[in-house]
Amino acid sequence: MTPRVLLPWSDLTVPDGLDTAVYDGTGTPPDLDGVEFYVLPYDSGPEPPKLIAKMPSLKAVQSLSAGVDNLLPLIPDGVTLTNGRGLHDLSVAEHTLALILAAQRDLPRWFRQQRTGSWDREHTRSLADERVLLVGYGSIGKAIERYLEAGEADVVRVASTAREGVHGIDELPELLPGASIVVLILPDTPATRGLISAPELAALEDGALVVNVGRGTAIDTAALTKEVADGRLRAALDVVDPEPLPADHPLWQLPGAIITPHVAGGSDSFHPRAKRLVEQQLARFARGEPLVNVVR
Amino acid sequence: MTPRVLLPWSDLTVPDGLDTAVYDGTGTPPDLDGVEFYVLPYDSGPEPPKLIAKMPSLKAVQSLSAGVDNLLPLIPDGVTLTNGRGLHDLSVAEHTLALILAAQRDLPRWFRQQRTGSWDREHTRSLADERVLLVGYGSIGKAIERYLEAGEADVVRVASTAREGVHGIDELPELLPGASIVVLILPDTPATRGLISAPELAALEDGALVVNVGRGTAIDTAALTKEVADGRLRAALDVVDPEPLPADHPLWQLPGAIITPHVAGGSDSFHPRAKRLVEQQLARFARGEPLVNVVR
Repeated sequence: MTPRVLLPWSDLTVPDGLDTAVYDGTGTPPDLDGVEFYVLPYDSGPEPPKLIAKMPSLKAVQSLSAGVDNLLPLIPDGVTLTNGRGLHDLSVAEHTLALILAAQRDLPRWFRQQRTGSWDREHTRSLADERVLLVGYGSIGKAIERYLEAGEADVVRVASTAREGVHGIDELPELLPGASIVVLILPDTPATRGLISAPELAALEDGALVVNVGRGTAIDTAALTKEVADGRLRAALDVVDPEPLPADHPLWQLPGAIITPHVAGGSDSFHPRAKRLVEQQLARFARGEPLVNVVR
Repeated sequence: MTPRVLLPWSDLTVPDGLDTAVYDGTGTPPDLDGVEFYVLPYDSGPEPPKLIAKMPSLKAVQSLSAGVDNLLPLIPDGVTLTNGRGLHDLSVAEHTLALILAAQRDLPRWFRQQRTGSWDREHTRSLADERVLLVGYGSIGKAIERYLEAGEADVVRVASTAREGVHGIDELPELLPGASIVVLILPDTPATRGLISAPELAALEDGALVVNVGRGTAIDTAALTKEVADGRLRAALDVVDPEPLPADHPLWQLPGAIITPHVAGGSDSFHPRAKRLVEQQLARFARGEPLVNVVR
C-alpha cells in the first residue's frame, strides 16, 4: 500500500510516492488506514490528538506548536514526534511589541476617546531609552529583541543560565529594580512557576510595565492584580493564570491592565512558515532522511 | 549686558557667559530684555511665538518641531531660525508601529472584549510578509523601516524623486495595487495635498490598511471615509483633515478605523533628544559657531 500522509491543508507540495489525505480538525476525519505521517491541525482542541491511537501504520507526528508536553503521553513507542519550534516566533514578537507599544503610547486611552470623538491630546511614555528586561532568551526572545533594538530600547537579556551577553535567572533580584519594562517569555516548568510573585513585583520601580507572552503560571496573578489595582505597576498580558481568566476577575477592569486572550502565536505569519516546514519534512520523510525539530 | 538665553527647561547645561531665563509656555513670560537665543517651548500653542516680536536683541530662534512654516512670517530679518528635525523620528516611528500592529493584531477587538471579560479567540492578520509602501522616505521613514525590517515585512520605499532603492512618487499608481499597508509620512505642500484620493484608494486591494502619520491633508478624508464605511479598506490615522476631526464625523465610529489625536511626535523619547540638541546649539552659540538645523 502507498504510504499516506494526513495534512491540515490541501495546497501543499507533496513528494511523489505519498498519498495525501486532509483533516483540518473539523468534521469527520478521513480513513486513517495506512497513515504514516500525521500533521496535527494547529490550535484545534482535543479531538485531533485522539486520532493518533487509531493509526496502526503511524511513523511520525508533526505538531505545529512549540510546546508538546500534552502530546507526549499519546505518542506510541517507535513513533517520532516533531514540533513547530520557530513557526510562531515572529507572530509572538509582533504581538509582544503591540502590547508594549499599546501600553507605552496609551492606545487604550485613544480608543476610549474615539468612542466619543474626543481630540484631547497628551504626551505619552515611549519605548525608546527604556530598559527592557527580556526574561527568556530563546528564538522568540531574539525576535522581540530585533524589534526593541530598532526602537532604541536598552535591552537586558536573561536566560535560565548565564552566558556571554546574557544574565542568569538567579540575577533577577538585582536586575528587576533597574527595569521599566519586564517581558516574560517562559515555558511552564516547575522552575518558572510563580517566578514573578509579590517580592519580585515589589522590586520593580513605580510605573513599570509587566508583559507576559509565555505561560501565565510564571506570574502570581493575585500579587500582580494587587500592584496594578494600587496603580503602582502596569500589566500587558497575553497569557494569565488561570486561562481563560474568569469574566468577573478584577484584573480585566483595571485601568493599568491590557489583556489579550492568548492570541500572540496565532496570526497570518504562522501559516506560510508552517507550510514551508511541513513541505520540507515531507520531502525528508519521502527520502528516508531524518526529520528536523525532533522532540523524541 | 550679558547675553541671555530663554529656555523651556531649567535643567540644561548652559555655557559660561550666558544668562539663563526659563519659559515653558505657561504663565507670565520673564523679562525679555537682552534675550539673544530663544528656544520655543514645544507644542505649546500660539502664545510663545508671539514673544519673538518683543525681543529686540534676538539673534536666533530654535523650534523643537520639524515643520516651522507657521513661524517663518514671525522671524525678523537677520534672525536665524533652526528646527527640531530628527527629534521626533523615533517617537513617530514608535507610534506608527503601534498603529500598524494595533490594526493587524486586532487590538480594538481585544480591548472591547476586555470590557466584558471575554476570552473569545481568533487568528489575526500579521505584519510579517506584508508589503508595506513607505510614502515619504526621510529620517522618520527610515526609523519606521528599521522596525518593519525587524518584523520581516516587505518594505517598498517611495520618495518625491526616484533614486537607488527608492521609487519616485510618480510610480505610485503602479505600486498601490501590490501593497497591503500604505504608510504616509508627508509634509503639507501643494504637491502632497490630496495625493491619496478616490482613484488611489480604489487601486488598493481589499482589506488594505492606510496609515497616516505625516499631515492629514495628504488624504481626501471623505473618500477614505467612504472606503472604510464600505468595509473595503482599513485606516489607522494620527493626523486627519481637518484637525481636530469634528466629534460627529462618521470616521470616528467606523469599525475599520483607528484614530489617535496627532500624538505620534509627543512622547518621552523626545525630551532627552531635544535637550541634547539645545545644549549643543547653546555651546555653538557661545563659541560663535554656526548652528545646525538652520531653516533660514
